[in-house]
Amino acid sequence: MVVAMSSDATPKQIEEVVQFIRKHDARPHLSKGEERTIIGVIGFNHRVQADQLLAMPGVENVIPISQPYKLVSREFKPEDTVIRVNGIKIGGSEPVVMAGPCAVESETQIIETARIVKQQGAHLLRGGAFKPRTSPYSFQGLGEEGLQFLQKAKNETGLPIVTEILDPHDLPLVEQYADILQIGARNMQNYALLKAVGHSQRPVLLKRGMSAQFTEFLMSAEYIMSEGNSNVILCERGIRSFVEYTRNTLDLNIVPAVKQVSHLPIIVDPSHGTGRKDLVETMSVAAMVAGADGLIIEVHPHPEKSWSDANQTLNPEQFARLMHKIRYYHECGKKYAAAGDAQAAVSQNDEVAVPAQ
Amino acid sequence: MVVAMSSDATPKQIEEVVQFIRKHDARPHLSKGEERTIIGVIGFNHRVQADQLLAMPGVENVIPISQPYKLVSREFKPEDTVIRVNGIKIGGSEPVVMAGPCAVESETQIIETARIVKQQGAHLLRGGAFKPRTSPYSFQGLGEEGLQFLQKAKNETGLPIVTEILDPHDLPLVEQYADILQIGARNMQNYALLKAVGHSQRPVLLKRGMSAQFTEFLMSAEYIMSEGNSNVILCERGIRSFVEYTRNTLDLNIVPAVKQVSHLPIIVDPSHGTGRKDLVETMSVAAMVAGADGLIIEVHPHPEKSWSDANQTLNPEQFARLMHKIRYYHECGKKYAAAGDAQAAVSQNDEVAVPAQ
Amino acid sequence: MVVAMSSDATPKQIEEVVQFIRKHDARPHLSKGEERTIIGVIGFNHRVQADQLLAMPGVENVIPISQPYKLVSREFKPEDTVIRVNGIKIGGSEPVVMAGPCAVESETQIIETARIVKQQGAHLLRGGAFKPRTSPYSFQGLGEEGLQFLQKAKNETGLPIVTEILDPHDLPLVEQYADILQIGARNMQNYALLKAVGHSQRPVLLKRGMSAQFTEFLMSAEYIMSEGNSNVILCERGIRSFVEYTRNTLDLNIVPAVKQVSHLPIIVDPSHGTGRKDLVETMSVAAMVAGADGLIIEVHPHPEKSWSDANQTLNPEQFARLMHKIRYYHECGKKYAAAGDAQAAVSQNDEVAVPAQ
Amino acid sequence: MVVAMSSDATPKQIEEVVQFIRKHDARPHLSKGEERTIIGVIGFNHRVQADQLLAMPGVENVIPISQPYKLVSREFKPEDTVIRVNGIKIGGSEPVVMAGPCAVESETQIIETARIVKQQGAHLLRGGAFKPRTSPYSFQGLGEEGLQFLQKAKNETGLPIVTEILDPHDLPLVEQYADILQIGARNMQNYALLKAVGHSQRPVLLKRGMSAQFTEFLMSAEYIMSEGNSNVILCERGIRSFVEYTRNTLDLNIVPAVKQVSHLPIIVDPSHGTGRKDLVETMSVAAMVAGADGLIIEVHPHPEKSWSDANQTLNPEQFARLMHKIRYYHECGKKYAAAGDAQAAVSQNDEVAVPAQ
Repeated sequence: MVVAMSSDATPKQIEEVVQFIRKHDARPHLSKGEERTIIGVIGFNHRVQADQLLAMPGVENVIPISQPYKLVSREFKPEDTVIRVNGIKIGGSEPVVMAGPCAVESETQIIETARIVKQQGAHLLRGGAFKPRTSPYSFQGLGEEGLQFLQKAKNETGLPIVTEILDPHDLPLVEQYADILQIGARNMQNYALLKAVGHSQRPVLLKRGMSAQFTEFLMSAEYIMSEGNSNVILCERGIRSFVEYTRNTLDLNIVPAVKQVSHLPIIVDPSHGTGRKDLVETMSVAAMVAGADGLIIEVHPHPEKSWSDANQTLNPEQFARLMHKIRYYHECGKKYAAAGDAQAAVSQNDEVAVPAQ
Repeated sequence: MVVAMSSDATPKQIEEVVQFIRKHDARPHLSKGEERTIIGVIGFNHRVQADQLLAMPGVENVIPISQPYKLVSREFKPEDTVIRVNGIKIGGSEPVVMAGPCAVESETQIIETARIVKQQGAHLLRGGAFKPRTSPYSFQGLGEEGLQFLQKAKNETGLPIVTEILDPHDLPLVEQYADILQIGARNMQNYALLKAVGHSQRPVLLKRGMSAQFTEFLMSAEYIMSEGNSNVILCERGIRSFVEYTRNTLDLNIVPAVKQVSHLPIIVDPSHGTGRKDLVETMSVAAMVAGADGLIIEVHPHPEKSWSDANQTLNPEQFARLMHKIRYYHECGKKYAAAGDAQAAVSQNDEVAVPAQ
Repeated sequence: MVVAMSSDATPKQIEEVVQFIRKHDARPHLSKGEERTIIGVIGFNHRVQADQLLAMPGVENVIPISQPYKLVSREFKPEDTVIRVNGIKIGGSEPVVMAGPCAVESETQIIETARIVKQQGAHLLRGGAFKPRTSPYSFQGLGEEGLQFLQKAKNETGLPIVTEILDPHDLPLVEQYADILQIGARNMQNYALLKAVGHSQRPVLLKRGMSAQFTEFLMSAEYIMSEGNSNVILCERGIRSFVEYTRNTLDLNIVPAVKQVSHLPIIVDPSHGTGRKDLVETMSVAAMVAGADGLIIEVHPHPEKSWSDANQTLNPEQFARLMHKIRYYHECGKKYAAAGDAQAAVSQNDEVAVPAQ
Repeated sequence: MVVAMSSDATPKQIEEVVQFIRKHDARPHLSKGEERTIIGVIGFNHRVQADQLLAMPGVENVIPISQPYKLVSREFKPEDTVIRVNGIKIGGSEPVVMAGPCAVESETQIIETARIVKQQGAHLLRGGAFKPRTSPYSFQGLGEEGLQFLQKAKNETGLPIVTEILDPHDLPLVEQYADILQIGARNMQNYALLKAVGHSQRPVLLKRGMSAQFTEFLMSAEYIMSEGNSNVILCERGIRSFVEYTRNTLDLNIVPAVKQVSHLPIIVDPSHGTGRKDLVETMSVAAMVAGADGLIIEVHPHPEKSWSDANQTLNPEQFARLMHKIRYYHECGKKYAAAGDAQAAVSQNDEVAVPAQ
């Protein structure tokens, strides 16, 4: 249930609603906008009566939320969430591309990659310093040293950093370097970690678990938001199925499905989603057209020398092609939307050009 | 193994190669092109020696085919197959849209639908006269009467017909009315049916089975082709997974994956693939951008009155929007391709306009 | 809905109920038992009123059936169905084992196998004459010649034959030789074939499709039964999942689940279900303990020379071990059941011995 | 690679082998048995030459390990691992049953449950104090208070405790109370948690992840073992599939598959594996017959009042029936094994009785 206060509600009236909710063993969740305050009512029981709330001074409306996810839901917050990171807007009108290697391997490697992806228009640098690996004997990432190399790459290029966190204990360390904290697919239901990053000031990139159903995915975002961090970016990265010709089965259907019920931004990871570099470009464009707010792409100066994920990692030239193509299609989409969702008069002089590469 | 005859090979030389293959217990498969003849060598054993063939008069080259599918493979036939149905090209440069109701319900319904989809630019009329239903007590289709209604709708609108065949025994009947024979997902490995339509003169629309892996899908096409019918259109219609928010999991990744290894056209069915009319338009556009050669869409004048699949069936207005949007994006794609795959100089005067609806 | 006539209902009373049902656009399905007649009411609508039927002369009770499957359901027929084939009871108190090669390869091979499995106590001989193969270039079975070899093996050993039918057109031929008609997993929703065997006098072994949900599986049995053939044996043979260490994922959970809602016998195929000969014995015993009415097992005199399925085929010695073990566990189970489902006084003198092999 | 030292190898010889391995950038893993010392060689590279090791004094044999899991593998340790907890042997000749409620709800509830399951022969008490729940608004467990209640139940009944740990940070607390640390399915690839419990003195019950493949499951056990804790109990609890009639798809095939390649004990959780109390007893017996070393079962004095998992929780009477039945089948199995795997002479006087309940 969400209580919308009227635009001229007084602080005292808001406080009384809050107290009323608490008295009934529910939890109030305040969201103070520029115009009005919205109070989410969260809890186990149904003892908080909508009609009693509606009768209180300063209350304009009371909206039931039918879904198990509350803060995540569009019923709670109708307008799209836009997350700002160093001046970049995620969930806004422009697509955001996070690019970089699977793992930080060396200072040279990460700085070289950062320069390449920056040059092609990437907005953030991705790279793992703490790597979740199936085998304890595989390379586990450079750890803090890797974070320092990411910092140097950021200093060189200005690109903010998105990097994975595996352990709640590492939060103070990773927060120092990361502009966005990544939660990997294997940790989507690691609730200790979700709660920890829920207390962070950093936005969180939440990857869908390999076998996560729709509601489970959104409920994991709800975990983070219910701890106070409302800056969650969802990420589709492929599900586990019987299909054998892709590493995972990239499920683009979730993009428009999420958009209908949630205000959160969602990006797509076609690198893990397909596991095949020859499919990454095509599926990236399909993802954008399906409504994704951005992409996260594995890029390496020399994929064949990459320590991990070589099969799904683009080289600089392939990444340049991809960027060029998604920019073009994004312009096409903007023009289409501007034309009034395909019906208004369209001037022949207002066309989309394929941009020079 | 494929034997490419030189362009000046004589009929006698070709015949000698054929005899040589037969003598070695393999099967020759002739494909006479405008310039040259290609002979596929199909069989269980490896007794046919490539070097012996290469030494024969008129043989230009011998190409091994590494995949279990032969006739389906791009190694066998590098250029895209274009299938012609009443002047419509499937697999050519323009997208092809097959639209219509799940089932033929009445003469009025199918003629009304045909007019609507024709008006919006659909190229073929779909509609089931023989319906595969989970329950024996559900409506099983109008049978021959349904085919006759389809014929009337075709007479009215000129739209060729695509309709499902369930039983090899029905082939002579269905062939009379159908311009394209549809094999449904549940029959993808019904080999008796595949062999039967392999002898037909009609092109075949082969839907992917619910749990079909990549090779299994292509091998089912190979069944049809190895019987002599080379006009096979593949169709992705969603796989069965654990995912609960779509009826099936539409797997767009298969579109570029098929394009890499096969010359056959592939279309996408977002109606069954998602089971949600609110996702059909978006996933249709994503499918086209991913490289699909066309779409098959469920449309009904009054979906709420549809006897089946009401949740995934578009009304005329929704279908009009979809057609408008995919045409627009197709123009964008053509322009992009014309610009030299994103690199050549692009004139500002040669832009894509959002077409008037 | 099921109408139970009283034991002294007259033929005229029964006929009146039938007419009443027909008048209301539903279909009556008569089942004349030794004591009483049961009439199933099948149809689209709910216009047939239970209270009106209950008021008719000779009607003892009217039972609603909540499931989409009617004839298959235990609500329709509470007691277990026992199917008799040449004196063998399937679904009775003793487990039934069908054994033999994947495919009939030669007269010698099938007769040799029949003798071996007969000697070890198998009740039926399995063997494919028409083989559904993923590739059109793989061995497709010996066809009618294979059926004749099966007949010779039957003549030698007395073992009845279970063999697959792929095409409705082959029914008259296959019926001549087969004591049980097998519908393979790929044809579980081949409704033309289901309807065809629904008219046969032969019992049908219906294998679960690779991605068949519970209701779909039972509805396919309903197709056969609704055409008049009530002798259907269900068969679990593994589902398609992401799991990689077995060829399919044998889903034993379906055995007790089926037993709760259906009166039909269900057997298990651990050969296809696991694809690993080293798991067949163990999973066979687990299947029997889970309540299966029997097993179908691939056995070959020399599995390493088998033309197909070599990895999952037992040799004679392995099959002997399996038979010995399931007989022993069956005796254990019988004794447990006799002891009053684990509570009554148990005589120390009434124990289960491991039988000599 | 595993180096087996001869039984009279001196400490100095062992040390030299260890130094040799380290010098070649690999990691030695010592396992000192009563008779001999075994040294596992773990590492990225293949620079440690088997023949050089074989030539060193005191080395008896060098065995390559072909699998990615090393310490987990039967190649590394051929004999079954038996884990001792308060006098109970897990992985030995007798089945071990862990029983109790999903969550600790109150002191009364857990003590009452402990008495009931103890009386029926359970060996350990299960109960969650920290609960992983899909929703942040669901009951998250009583935390430390729950652990204290478990302690009281242990004091009352003597049953050791198995309880879940969610956060590495909680390890010192949970270790105080837990005799076995449970890692839930959602945390199977939470490597921070796996490493943490790898340093604990407590045995670990590792549940299979919902979409874990075989090797992934064993590699997660390898994580724990490679940190020094060799007491890992595997647990199959159902996988996520398309199947709808069970909550998860209990995959019993993994039991014999694990036994072939690993020395670790494996138990089965039919409560979560099926999600249906009406299937738990049957699938428990099937699990034991398939070779499981034990079971973990949800039991509640009043399942209908249970705060979670009510549908899959047994009441005391159902649990009593289950215990009775598995004991009986275990005796049957022991007798069968004693009879020489079904071939030796079996005395009629040495039979299995159904025990009085």
